[in-house]
Amino acid sequence: MKSWDRVAIVGVGLIGGSIGQALLRRQLAREVIGIGHKTASLQAAEQVGAVSSWTTDLAAGVKDVQLVVVCTPVEQIVPCVRQAAAACSSGTLITDAGSTKRDIVSQLTLGAASDPHWGRNVRFVGSHPLAGNEKRGPQAAMADLFDGRAVVVTPSAATSAADLQTITEFWNWLGGRVVVMSPEDHDRAVASTSHLPHVAASAIAAATPSEYVTLTGGGWLDTTRIAAGDPHLWRQILLSNRENLLQALESLQFQLDGWKSAVEQADGERIEKLLTEAKRIRDAVGS
Amino acid sequence: MKSWDRVAIVGVGLIGGSIGQALLRRQLAREVIGIGHKTASLQAAEQVGAVSSWTTDLAAGVKDVQLVVVCTPVEQIVPCVRQAAAACSSGTLITDAGSTKRDIVSQLTLGAASDPHWGRNVRFVGSHPLAGNEKRGPQAAMADLFDGRAVVVTPSAATSAADLQTITEFWNWLGGRVVVMSPEDHDRAVASTSHLPHVAASAIAAATPSEYVTLTGGGWLDTTRIAAGDPHLWRQILLSNRENLLQALESLQFQLDGWKSAVEQADGERIEKLLTEAKRIRDAVGS
Repeated sequence: MKSWDRVAIVGVGLIGGSIGQALLRRQLAREVIGIGHKTASLQAAEQVGAVSSWTTDLAAGVKDVQLVVVCTPVEQIVPCVRQAAAACSSGTLITDAGSTKRDIVSQLTLGAASDPHWGRNVRFVGSHPLAGNEKRGPQAAMADLFDGRAVVVTPSAATSAADLQTITEFWNWLGGRVVVMSPEDHDRAVASTSHLPHVAASAIAAATPSEYVTLTGGGWLDTTRIAAGDPHLWRQILLSNRENLLQALESLQFQLDGWKSAVEQADGERIEKLLTEAKRIRDAVGS
Repeated sequence: MKSWDRVAIVGVGLIGGSIGQALLRRQLAREVIGIGHKTASLQAAEQVGAVSSWTTDLAAGVKDVQLVVVCTPVEQIVPCVRQAAAACSSGTLITDAGSTKRDIVSQLTLGAASDPHWGRNVRFVGSHPLAGNEKRGPQAAMADLFDGRAVVVTPSAATSAADLQTITEFWNWLGGRVVVMSPEDHDRAVASTSHLPHVAASAIAAATPSEYVTLTGGGWLDTTRIAAGDPHLWRQILLSNRENLLQALESLQFQLDGWKSAVEQADGERIEKLLTEAKRIRDAVGS
C-alpha cells in the first residue's frame, strides 16, 4: 500500500472530514489540505484532525497536490472541479463524492474536449461513497465512516485503466468496498437505494399526526431517521436524479397499492407473504 | 418504590424476557415465573436471567402471583388472559404487552360480566410498551429495553384508579414513560407511529430491484430495518388494526402523491419545503 504525499479536499463536511481523518490517522497521506469558504468550519476540521492545513483559496490549495477530492454539495461539484482543474499541477487526478453521477460526469467529460484546462494531463473520475448519515459538518467526521460501505466509481469512456485503479485503491484504503458502474447505472441504482428511502422517510414523518408524535417507538425512529438530513443538500440531490427517482417512487406506490388492497380485504395470507418477501430482502443485506 | 413478590410472564420472548430481566436485575420482583410452551426458549430465558423459574403449565405458573404480564403474540393474548384469570388467586392483576388494544380490551371487558373467572377480584388492564426491535426470542432481551420508551396504558370503564396506578408504576419502574389513553385512541396513534412505518419499511425493501441491493447505504438500512421483523407476529398486529392502518396508509399515499408531483415538475422550492417540514417533525422527536 503506497501513500499519498498531498491530497486536497474541497468541502470539509461530514464526508470530506471523514476522508481527511481516515487519510491522516491511517497515514495514507502525509498532508491533507482542506479547502472551503467558511473559516470556522475549516478550523473545526483541523481541530478534529480531518486536515493538516486549510485555505479558503481553492486555486492555492490544489496547487501542488496529487489528488483533489471534491466533497461539496452536488450543485457546486462541476464548478469546483473546473476551478481545481485550472489551478492544479499537470498530472493531478480529481474525484468527487457526489450523490448523483450522470450529470456531473457528462458535464465534466463533455467539457474536457473544449476546455483548455483539461489539456494538461489533469483527469476527473467520478465517485460516490454510500456512507454518511443525517449529521453534517466536520465535527461529525468519523475515520471509519467508509468501513465496509459501498463506494461507486463511475468511469467515463475517457477514463484510463490506470486512473480507475488509482481511484479504486484510494477508496479501498479508506475501508470502502468499490463497485464500478456507469454513471447512468449508478443513478438508477441510488434512486432506489438512497433517494427513495429519503423521500419515504420524509413522507412517513409528515404523515404522522402531531398529537401522536410522543408515541413513536424504535420502528418510527429508524424509518424516519434520514428525514433529519439537510433539506438544501437533498433538494439538489433529488432534483439531479428526477427521472430515476420518479420511477422508484412509482415502484413504491405500486407496492403500497398492493398493501392497501391486502389490508382492505383483511387478506392475512397475502399480508404475511408481503412481510415475508420484504424480510427476505432485508435479511440478505444485514445490519 | 415497593417491589413485587411474584410476577408471572406468559410468553418470554424479546419483550417478556426484557421485562423479566429488568424486574430481577433491579430487584423489583423477588421471583419471576416464565410461562410458555417451548422448553428450549424457557431454558434460554432462565440462562439470560429473564426468569427465576419456568413452567409450560400456565395454570400452575400463575397460581400464586400478584401480577401476570401476558407477552404472547397478539392473537393469543385474549385466550391466555382468560386462562390466567381462571387459574390465578383472587386479587391478581393481569396486564399485557400487545401492540393493539381495542379488540383485546373490549373482548376482555365484555367477557368480564358473563365470565365466572372475573368474579374473583381478578382484573385486566391493557398495556403496550412501544419498545422492541426486529429481533426476537429471550436471547435478545435487554433489561434497559424500556428506558425512556413510551408505554401506553389503556384503562377501560371498569378499571379502578388503584389498578391504573399500580400498572402505571409497574412500567415506570421498568424505565418506561407511561401515557394513559383509551384503547381506541391508542390504536389510532400506533397505526401512524408503528404499523405504518412497518408497512412502509416492507414496501421500500420490496421496491428495491435485486440487482441494486449491494448499493444500499445507511439510509436504506435504517429505513427498512423493521422489515426484518417476524412476519407472523406482524400479520396479527396489522390485521387487528385494519381500519386505522388503512387511514394511515392513505395519509402516506397522499404525501407521496405530493412528492411525485413536486419531482415531476422539478419544483425545487416545493421539494425543499417538504424536506424542511419533515426534518422539523423528525428533529423534534430526537434519536
